[in-house]
Amino acid sequence: MSQGFVIWLTGLPGSGKTTIAQLLAEELRRFGCAVEILDSDEVRRKIYSDLGFSREDRGENLKRLTFIANLLIRNGVVVIVAAVSPYRAERAEVRAELQPFVEVYLKCPLEVCIQRHAKLYKEAQAGQILHMTGISDPYEEPENPEIVLETDQSTAEEAIQRILLTLEQSNYLKPDQAFSESDEEKVRQRLEALGYL
Amino acid sequence: MSQGFVIWLTGLPGSGKTTIAQLLAEELRRFGCAVEILDSDEVRRKIYSDLGFSREDRGENLKRLTFIANLLIRNGVVVIVAAVSPYRAERAEVRAELQPFVEVYLKCPLEVCIQRHAKLYKEAQAGQILHMTGISDPYEEPENPEIVLETDQSTAEEAIQRILLTLEQSNYLKPDQAFSESDEEKVRQRLEALGYL
Repeated sequence: MSQGFVIWLTGLPGSGKTTIAQLLAEELRRFGCAVEILDSDEVRRKIYSDLGFSREDRGENLKRLTFIANLLIRNGVVVIVAAVSPYRAERAEVRAELQPFVEVYLKCPLEVCIQRHAKLYKEAQAGQILHMTGISDPYEEPENPEIVLETDQSTAEEAIQRILLTLEQSNYLKPDQAFSESDEEKVRQRLEALGYL
Repeated sequence: MSQGFVIWLTGLPGSGKTTIAQLLAEELRRFGCAVEILDSDEVRRKIYSDLGFSREDRGENLKRLTFIANLLIRNGVVVIVAAVSPYRAERAEVRAELQPFVEVYLKCPLEVCIQRHAKLYKEAQAGQILHMTGISDPYEEPENPEIVLETDQSTAEEAIQRILLTLEQSNYLKPDQAFSESDEEKVRQRLEALGYL
């Protein structure tokens, strides 16, 4: 069993959380990791449609995601959580519950997010969506995230490389035990490209 | 990674679900399985306190448990669900979502359950608890469960042996790959006791 840990993607709606989560999951699976994505929007739609976006409901959502993530981590699964999670205090609580925890802040100017998710932000600006982070609700920037990705400045692929490099440097990825033989060559090439071999 | 599957314990409050779940988890861990218990009462208390016991809320509870169980099964975890789950239709839905699925019906006369959980049933009989299965809500007996345990007729240990035997016969437990070496002798003895060696 490889080691479970959490990669927590936080940032404004439109900052790229879902995209990064999916690409990262693919890459980590190539390393032989068992990976699950808990995408807050998707999980809300599937099983937590009772929750809105008030601070209380957001907290409840994180509490539930944390419970699920913990069950997975302790069974060796790498869990990628994609959640706006705008409040510092709530993210601190989540971190205390989930170890190891890698906080990744997807930093992206509001104007760029608005361009990417025009319809959503337009509805929020027209007052049709309550508690829209960035418009009617605050986003508290992380103070000490493990990784900051300026998603308007780099490609998704570059962002993924940054995350993988940090994971390797923190010994979360153990190339000598984590991957299956059939992927060995692929991983060797990757490590070479990253300057490890 | 060993194979994930679900053992679904259904039965009246007081039929022994929590006790069986805990003992069974211990035994399965000795076989080298990764095991998680989703005890409905406990999960409700921790993260689903918004749900009551109306038919709708019970359905919602099962939907959420099913989502969590699926994430675990597909990562090789054996999930033991302990939930009254009184309705046949809802159990059929759950079975359709969770495969492999082993339904274990903990059959126990209501009078015995009442003796075991006197306080709870007393409150229900006094009308202080709405939707109490066995008192004010129906329990629909399973028609084709994989296993029926008459928990007033046998000890918990005997019940566990019955479940283990069925799991072995269904090839859910693979003794030659599932356990760690340090447990090998223990497992050998168990298989011998069960008449397999």
